[in-house]
Amino acid sequence: MDVYVYSAGSMLPGPPVDIPTLARRFRMTSIWEQWVEAFIGTPVRHYSVDLDTGEARFSLADLATTAAERALAAAGMTAADVDLVVMGTSSPDMLMPATVNVVADQLGVDGVPTYQLQSGCTGAVQALDVARHMLRSGAARTALVLGADSCAKHFDLTADVSALPPEEQVNGVLFGDGAGAAVLGTTPPPEPVALRWTQVHCVGHNRPPGQTLNWFGAAERHVLRPAAVEDYRAVQEAVPPMAVETLDEVLDVLGWDRDGLDYVLPPQLSGRMTAEIQARLDVPQAQEVSCVGETGNTGNALPFFQLERLLPGMVTGDRAVGVAIESSKWIKAGFALEKVGP
Amino acid sequence: MDVYVYSAGSMLPGPPVDIPTLARRFRMTSIWEQWVEAFIGTPVRHYSVDLDTGEARFSLADLATTAAERALAAAGMTAADVDLVVMGTSSPDMLMPATVNVVADQLGVDGVPTYQLQSGCTGAVQALDVARHMLRSGAARTALVLGADSCAKHFDLTADVSALPPEEQVNGVLFGDGAGAAVLGTTPPPEPVALRWTQVHCVGHNRPPGQTLNWFGAAERHVLRPAAVEDYRAVQEAVPPMAVETLDEVLDVLGWDRDGLDYVLPPQLSGRMTAEIQARLDVPQAQEVSCVGETGNTGNALPFFQLERLLPGMVTGDRAVGVAIESSKWIKAGFALEKVGP
Repeated sequence: MDVYVYSAGSMLPGPPVDIPTLARRFRMTSIWEQWVEAFIGTPVRHYSVDLDTGEARFSLADLATTAAERALAAAGMTAADVDLVVMGTSSPDMLMPATVNVVADQLGVDGVPTYQLQSGCTGAVQALDVARHMLRSGAARTALVLGADSCAKHFDLTADVSALPPEEQVNGVLFGDGAGAAVLGTTPPPEPVALRWTQVHCVGHNRPPGQTLNWFGAAERHVLRPAAVEDYRAVQEAVPPMAVETLDEVLDVLGWDRDGLDYVLPPQLSGRMTAEIQARLDVPQAQEVSCVGETGNTGNALPFFQLERLLPGMVTGDRAVGVAIESSKWIKAGFALEKVGP
Repeated sequence: MDVYVYSAGSMLPGPPVDIPTLARRFRMTSIWEQWVEAFIGTPVRHYSVDLDTGEARFSLADLATTAAERALAAAGMTAADVDLVVMGTSSPDMLMPATVNVVADQLGVDGVPTYQLQSGCTGAVQALDVARHMLRSGAARTALVLGADSCAKHFDLTADVSALPPEEQVNGVLFGDGAGAAVLGTTPPPEPVALRWTQVHCVGHNRPPGQTLNWFGAAERHVLRPAAVEDYRAVQEAVPPMAVETLDEVLDVLGWDRDGLDYVLPPQLSGRMTAEIQARLDVPQAQEVSCVGETGNTGNALPFFQLERLLPGMVTGDRAVGVAIESSKWIKAGFALEKVGP
């Protein structure tokens, strides 16, 4: 049974925050600004927390609800049409209730399965994969798929950033907050874009994690280990070849000609890394669909921002492949879309 | 396509901790002991943390890995047979990597989809549901399904329990640590028990959560709001009728005769609540399969402990229905098994 992507929607908490603004806020030098520009290359990101006051203006559920409302509106649907919700995030508002259930409540979606995947940068594809298989199995007809992340709980505005080692600093300039959504279903729409394939392969056996993100319980509030650590060198080394492998695997499983690919949605780790990965993917005729320069790395939300940019331009016969790589425990994820009509 | 449950396995960090031991450890009175006995009625629970030294002896990944190894051994399978892993938990070791990926690494499962559902007391059924639909859709042939929880991060051994309000105290006597696993697949085994049905319905629209569980990020370590709050009265009121509705819905969708039910696996909130729910389910001829008296409330692990008790006794034609209710944002979950041979 074919599964279609009806629409996508997104939400960024404004305004865009550039590197000079971050440098001023955390009293970093112009050398630091240049370092971030050279090695990260992500011009802006958006935060749920007001950088001046520290006030949290949006919960993760708020961001996801708005993205979902926009995706539903773009599909010409309402909450009553949704009979499955699947969300990917690494940063739920609470452990319980799962944020997806708060989103369902805010949307007015009720009486249906609501699943939240704990995931890093491949969570959007995980959510698309679970939704696709549940739709194919007949468990649902219309699925709302969400990806959202917020660094608000990790973002210590009182931190002395200059005292942190680079492997902790890097998270602060890579990540921003945001949410994305897509509506999927089994009924062919007037402009059908088929979700031809989804795959998620964890390949972390015998490999140390490239990124770890801790949370603290009531018994651990005074533990002084770092919350977030990224082995950026390992990430830089491993992600580009994993992205190439994933693209090759997706093309291979579908029997798609590499030269016939119309769009590629590369991983959106940072401006710099995305550019490098795109070059390594070596599909010069395919149009690159990237967002990280305007969104920052919004984690589980990224592929939805890319879908939002991709869908309106697709014409019948167009083929697109998206790739996401999770460096926490090394997950390769890919998906493929084809516009099959009208 | 039929999906079969091949085996179940479990892991409890020992030893059993009874109410008098908890009372001594937290300097509570004998009146408190009597109160806990009367209103909770769960004789023992098991903890990953040593109550005397505070030492953490097992991570959540450790518990889940052992349960998985036991379930695989019971199915006569190895890690190489597994092509899908789905885990439910409310208490992952870290936000990233997801604990399921650490478990996969420890087991030697590699190159397959690994999904972790953030969930409370219905996470085991959520995981069974996702696995069942992915197996039915052809995404996998053999799935390892896990449920595990640990309260170690929440369990403040220095807390003055007597100063806490009852809605916070109650969590400390309800919950224990544990992990469970089941192996599912599409190839009929010699003694086939079919997973006939799974359903998960979030019904939280316009209802306040009955239970909330917070986590803290690096920016929030000194926030003084409580980590865990339970509206035990709301839970006591809502869960029994929700359990009855769920059993009725499952019987109805399968067209199963209420009087022909051989086993019932009721929710395992506490000894007291389970007994009350079992009475309300009103299936006197069906054998009750409960575990909370020996395991404590192990959250996402509970249905696997029940499956482990259920499976060996089933004979051809036997029918069983399991029910789990999540009070965080009100989720009704049910599943049905039928022994279809030999």
